[in-house]
Amino acid sequence: MTRKYNFSAGPAMLPQPVLEQAQAELLDWNGTGQSVMEMSHRGKEFMSIAETAEADLREVMNIPDNYKVLFLQGGATSQFAAIPLNLLRGKEGADYVNTGIWSTKAITEASRYCLVNVVSNSESSHFTSIQNYEEWNINPDAAYLHYTPNETIAGVEFPWVPDTGEIPLVADMSSNILSRPVDVSEFGLIYAGAQKNIGPAGLTIVIVREDLIGDAMDITPTMLNYDVHAKNGSMYNTPSTYAWYLAGLIFKWLKQQGGLEQMEILNRRKAAMLYDCIDNSDFYSNPVDKEYRSLMNVPFTLANSELNEKFLTEAATRDLVYLKGHKSVGGMRASIYNAMPEQGVIELVDMMKSFETKYG
Amino acid sequence: MTRKYNFSAGPAMLPQPVLEQAQAELLDWNGTGQSVMEMSHRGKEFMSIAETAEADLREVMNIPDNYKVLFLQGGATSQFAAIPLNLLRGKEGADYVNTGIWSTKAITEASRYCLVNVVSNSESSHFTSIQNYEEWNINPDAAYLHYTPNETIAGVEFPWVPDTGEIPLVADMSSNILSRPVDVSEFGLIYAGAQKNIGPAGLTIVIVREDLIGDAMDITPTMLNYDVHAKNGSMYNTPSTYAWYLAGLIFKWLKQQGGLEQMEILNRRKAAMLYDCIDNSDFYSNPVDKEYRSLMNVPFTLANSELNEKFLTEAATRDLVYLKGHKSVGGMRASIYNAMPEQGVIELVDMMKSFETKYG
Repeated sequence: MTRKYNFSAGPAMLPQPVLEQAQAELLDWNGTGQSVMEMSHRGKEFMSIAETAEADLREVMNIPDNYKVLFLQGGATSQFAAIPLNLLRGKEGADYVNTGIWSTKAITEASRYCLVNVVSNSESSHFTSIQNYEEWNINPDAAYLHYTPNETIAGVEFPWVPDTGEIPLVADMSSNILSRPVDVSEFGLIYAGAQKNIGPAGLTIVIVREDLIGDAMDITPTMLNYDVHAKNGSMYNTPSTYAWYLAGLIFKWLKQQGGLEQMEILNRRKAAMLYDCIDNSDFYSNPVDKEYRSLMNVPFTLANSELNEKFLTEAATRDLVYLKGHKSVGGMRASIYNAMPEQGVIELVDMMKSFETKYG
Repeated sequence: MTRKYNFSAGPAMLPQPVLEQAQAELLDWNGTGQSVMEMSHRGKEFMSIAETAEADLREVMNIPDNYKVLFLQGGATSQFAAIPLNLLRGKEGADYVNTGIWSTKAITEASRYCLVNVVSNSESSHFTSIQNYEEWNINPDAAYLHYTPNETIAGVEFPWVPDTGEIPLVADMSSNILSRPVDVSEFGLIYAGAQKNIGPAGLTIVIVREDLIGDAMDITPTMLNYDVHAKNGSMYNTPSTYAWYLAGLIFKWLKQQGGLEQMEILNRRKAAMLYDCIDNSDFYSNPVDKEYRSLMNVPFTLANSELNEKFLTEAATRDLVYLKGHKSVGGMRASIYNAMPEQGVIELVDMMKSFETKYG
């Protein structure tokens, strides 16, 4: 078997040692004669898996004690509704930053439950830049301010965290959580679908400051009520047990890699290789402001879009797959999350250079 | 490795051949060099997995073409809210049958969105029986009638399907779906959390008649809107891809076993062995009306509850695990879903008899 280098935006590559461990213990976890998938979520075996995973995530992200960590289902898209339903707390509206397609989706859903004040909108630049914080139109009465630190489609990432003072900061970190250290205490709520840097699809992590929960709107479905999940250790109903277990294996793997400081070093190196290749070429291009280029998702176009199919075919012969760009941007996109080995980026850059020599 | 016979109410045993296949292809599905967990849900590989799973489920359950099959997240508990939000369609209220703890939870959640008319309530019998249909207090204007064909905690199962005429019948089949044939056309909506007979936790199947969707309440979160999922082939956002794949393996396994007709034969035989053992003993007892005893969940008590711990310990020495009853009922509970081999029940009955001889 040749493992592919998978540049998908998510679900995406998982670390090979994690998959190998999952494979080895698939029918028999820790000598119990059971698969993790078969265990009651209320039994002592799964409880230990769940608690260890949370403890490891708390360690890796250095999460303060006054934050709850929830292991939920439904993806970030469910959180687009859950956030206004839980965090408005009697206020009329919330502030949203629009830096791309995922921000836009969050805004559309929130608008169904509250007044949304779009404090900054980079749509006119086709989401290739981010407006300076000083120019944002903040409402001091906002229940919270929501932003998307990394936009997977245009490949735009915040290099800084907005300092919103007393206004709780809410971040959709689906595509860059665990890619670098963050100071959790700067946030009111962090959420992320698992399928990029946490584990398999079907798990959603919410990290929320305790004082923000407990005052959900009456119309909130129980399964979207953070307080219910917090009070029940994310086991109000049966959680996504296998995905929770796999996330736990990833957290252990992150610790073995040296934690988020090391991941940031590696992620910066991988991204720099790719952007250097693009910038040193007249054949490839990336339109994003250098200051706001994503470390996770690197979209690029070819000078001649008629070569796109040939590019994908040649890449595939070198085991480089899922490079096709999002339809709204075109061209290519290389998503290089934590689990993408440096060697995968080296191979991609090498392939890009030889493709340019041949066809450029 | 000795595989245990796991009598958990769910998550529960999965068929060993399914786990072995999942293990074999965990790092490399079908020669693609990728784990199913790593595949983009929009790629051709996962799309084929998803479509095959749906086609096999449609075949196994003989689902008519005018029903949508949705592969969702959030468990049956999310559906407790989604059902009134989607199916009220301008009506004021819905009918609910209360036959146990899961019915009660569905009623509590629905009451937040509509007038709930409890048409029948067997709480006074401690949920050990079901009222005759003729005595139910049906409201002809109800938007739908909701019931729970099998209650896992008291071990009560409907041997018949209520004929509600024009009122759409909604069934929480979480704990008995795929255990016997059903005529889907008798139902407006069938839903089930996966973690008993479908696959691992983290997947929820909804089978819904097309004409009932498309008129959700304005407050419905997008992720609870059936119409959105139906129009997007359950891929409005990233679905629980690995659980979907495993469910597909289960559906193939069911076909190999001879389908639901064969499962019913096997399930009746397994349940009969256990109930016979209980009924032929003065030591074990089960309080449920014989007509309404569950084929899936068999609760039983020991004549002397001080022997409970000893019973569980002796069972464990024979690789029979997760037999402890629900705290609201006490005693033991043997959940014997499709994946529990007949041999597991034979071993349990043998152990019960020798335990009775020793301590009874």
